[in-house]
Amino acid sequence: MAVAELTESEREVWLRTLSNWTLAREGKAIQRNFEFPDFNAAFGFMTRVALLAEKHDHHPEWFNVYNRVEVTLTTHDAGENGGLSHRDAKMAKAMDALAGS
Amino acid sequence: MAVAELTESEREVWLRTLSNWTLAREGKAIQRNFEFPDFNAAFGFMTRVALLAEKHDHHPEWFNVYNRVEVTLTTHDAGENGGLSHRDAKMAKAMDALAGS
Repeated sequence: MAVAELTESEREVWLRTLSNWTLAREGKAIQRNFEFPDFNAAFGFMTRVALLAEKHDHHPEWFNVYNRVEVTLTTHDAGENGGLSHRDAKMAKAMDALAGS
Repeated sequence: MAVAELTESEREVWLRTLSNWTLAREGKAIQRNFEFPDFNAAFGFMTRVALLAEKHDHHPEWFNVYNRVEVTLTTHDAGENGGLSHRDAKMAKAMDALAGS
C-alpha cells in the first residue's frame, strides 16, 4: 500500500524536532548513529526497536558493531522510488525515546 | 588479551569447512550474507547470535534490513591490526548452525 511522501516543507518542520537525525540519500532517508555503554545496552535497544518495528510493519536498516548502532530510516513504498513519510518520523521519535535522548 | 591470529595454512583449512563464508579485508575478516523468510526470522536469528556473542565476548559486525543479515567477523585483538582467530571460526560455525545451514 502506497504511503504519502512528505512534502519538502513538512520534512523541514519535523526535521527541526529530530535534531539528532540527518537527511541522507538525497532527502529520501534519515540517519542517526546511537552509542551505548556496551553491547548489552546496544542490542537491548535494538530488541525494543525490533518489537516496535514488527508491530508497525516498518523496519529500519541498521548496522551494529559492539556498542554502536547506525540507523537509516526510509519508506520503500512512499513516492515513486521510496522516500520519507510520517512513518519514519514516528519511528525516529520512538527510537530517540527508547535510547533516552 | 591478545588472541593468536590464524596462520595462512590454518585459515585455508577451516575456510574449506565454512563454504558459505568469504574472506574480506585482505584476509583479516570473513563475511556471509544470511537471508530469512521475514524480519521476525532474521531478528530471531540475530537475538540468538547476540546471546552467544555476549557469552563468549566475541561480537559480530552486522547489517540488517528486513529479512537480510550481512555479517562480518574479525578478531580485533588478533595479530598487529586485527585478524582472524579461532574465535571467528567458532562463531561462524555457530551462526551457520543457528541459521540452519
